[in-house]
Amino acid sequence: MARWLIILAGGRGERFWPLSRMMHPKQFLTLMGDRSMIRSTRDRVRPLIDPAHTWVVTGQDYVRKVQANLPDIPTGHILGEPVGRNTAPSIAWAAAHIQQIDPDGTLLVLPSDHMIQQEEQFRKLVVKAMNAAEQYGGFYTFGIVPTHPETGYGYIEHDGMAFGDSLVLTVHQFIEKPPLEDAETMVASGSYFWNSGMFVFKVGELMAAVERHLPELHRGLVALVAEPDHVNEIFPELPQVSIDHGIMERVENVYVLPAAIGWDDVGTFAALARHLPRNDEQNAAKGHAIFVDSQNVTAISEGPVVSFVGVKDLFVVATKDAVLILSPERSQDVRKVVQALKEAQHDHLL
Amino acid sequence: MARWLIILAGGRGERFWPLSRMMHPKQFLTLMGDRSMIRSTRDRVRPLIDPAHTWVVTGQDYVRKVQANLPDIPTGHILGEPVGRNTAPSIAWAAAHIQQIDPDGTLLVLPSDHMIQQEEQFRKLVVKAMNAAEQYGGFYTFGIVPTHPETGYGYIEHDGMAFGDSLVLTVHQFIEKPPLEDAETMVASGSYFWNSGMFVFKVGELMAAVERHLPELHRGLVALVAEPDHVNEIFPELPQVSIDHGIMERVENVYVLPAAIGWDDVGTFAALARHLPRNDEQNAAKGHAIFVDSQNVTAISEGPVVSFVGVKDLFVVATKDAVLILSPERSQDVRKVVQALKEAQHDHLL
Repeated sequence: MARWLIILAGGRGERFWPLSRMMHPKQFLTLMGDRSMIRSTRDRVRPLIDPAHTWVVTGQDYVRKVQANLPDIPTGHILGEPVGRNTAPSIAWAAAHIQQIDPDGTLLVLPSDHMIQQEEQFRKLVVKAMNAAEQYGGFYTFGIVPTHPETGYGYIEHDGMAFGDSLVLTVHQFIEKPPLEDAETMVASGSYFWNSGMFVFKVGELMAAVERHLPELHRGLVALVAEPDHVNEIFPELPQVSIDHGIMERVENVYVLPAAIGWDDVGTFAALARHLPRNDEQNAAKGHAIFVDSQNVTAISEGPVVSFVGVKDLFVVATKDAVLILSPERSQDVRKVVQALKEAQHDHLL
Repeated sequence: MARWLIILAGGRGERFWPLSRMMHPKQFLTLMGDRSMIRSTRDRVRPLIDPAHTWVVTGQDYVRKVQANLPDIPTGHILGEPVGRNTAPSIAWAAAHIQQIDPDGTLLVLPSDHMIQQEEQFRKLVVKAMNAAEQYGGFYTFGIVPTHPETGYGYIEHDGMAFGDSLVLTVHQFIEKPPLEDAETMVASGSYFWNSGMFVFKVGELMAAVERHLPELHRGLVALVAEPDHVNEIFPELPQVSIDHGIMERVENVYVLPAAIGWDDVGTFAALARHLPRNDEQNAAKGHAIFVDSQNVTAISEGPVVSFVGVKDLFVVATKDAVLILSPERSQDVRKVVQALKEAQHDHLL
């Protein structure tokens, strides 16, 4: 009966182009500090879970990158998906492997590309959730106290204390990405958290829930674990469903731990910009930048020196072969550039 | 008695950084069309003057670049200055060489980094000036009809027709870079031209004027032509003086040809931006650029694809190792970036 970590690293996000590329998505970027997002994710819980007990589910194209980022994880623990089928198949695939080794194990599931500033506090909550899962059973999530009516996240409504512990609350319901008006009401009410996509449960309970609520997925996984060489035939046939929708919303004993841990999914350049230190003129730089009479400029360079003269309110990313110059409030629209490059068949830049 | 071309290519301008570098100044840039500025300068008058009759005065560091740009010029016709001493020594040095070969020759002196759009008209004026110089003697300039009260240029006041030809006017006076108020008055009066820095005179007349008005320079040049291997000792001792101030303002028979030839010295990125074709959103690109919801943006790239999302009123230059993002009205301040790089000892970027 051990504790296991499953890292979800299948993202192919385009919102960080030109830092991120088809072959170098966000989880492998060093957006903050000196380590890649996936490496930070693993290191953050290393005091709790051994590398030998870590599994990663990623795209087939990224298996080698995961190995390079996490060299102390057993090679066989890096599962490469031929196509993305959302989070339920990813988690259940790794869980099916773990169940064979340790049927009584406890799982911590983490996305590979989020930021957590209060790591010590986060680890305390993880231990609390794993202890509770082992003592009481059930499905545990970490709920982020919302700071604004974000419409890009799912929400979790709680229903008061579970187990007489004010840090473990019963989940009343999950709400998918809401319209702005609903988001505003939820944030104002104080009974809702953001769904951070991090989970804790016992492997046996998860697989039983998969068998009950997603029987087609369960059958596929049994076949996949029996014949791993047939992944390219079996995996694409698995149902495409999220763990939230497929499992968490359907099981009975779901709990949320309020998590004041400095969490951010750093989903856009605008989010990244919020976390960079700024000078007196509100300029921020990662990499070599020169600011002359400029204000509220964020520069991220992977090499070129980036110089500004007399400009303001810009977000700039420079790499050797691509430069992006963005209005800070337009960071969702980086995809439009990626789309234009696709249409012009400039695949080497993607 | 032949016709000779002297190209002045000593510029070390910093206003085009990061396109221009210490070792790659403006005259070697391909700012418009598909040829370098110096190559365009030579090609423009090639129907009039043979490459074998062309001389170039440049910095010692740039001799090989001139050779590469103008491979059909005799190697011995490229004079490398160890230091810049302004235009009078440059012109007189080449003229002293030409005088030895062809004491009765006629000289056309051209800066190497100006744009002329009406080339046919320009050649007609050059022929007219050279014919006049050969028929009447004297010192000829080309006067650009001012379009705005530019304070960065010298002005020439004319005094009416010379030789009964409405296209050749007598020069009343030269005015150095004026204050704005004076510039406005001059432009409004209609009697003033911009001094384009292009000249025509007979080599014998020029050298006689040098001997009379700049005797120290003349002595130095006699020594230099006799002992060309001592250029590093002799040249730095020559007086630092412009041809305008040292000769043109002091001789008597000076003429100006009004030149409506689409001239621009393209002295800044702002000037360059004026000459690039624009799309409906007033965006212009030289190199690979992608514009999304952006207006009045100029992009110049030497390689990287430059993408814009939701921005306006920018001038951007991208090279492999440096990116400049500039407010269009601040193109004079590119020097501040160069200065910052110098202070930070990033010499490899200069």
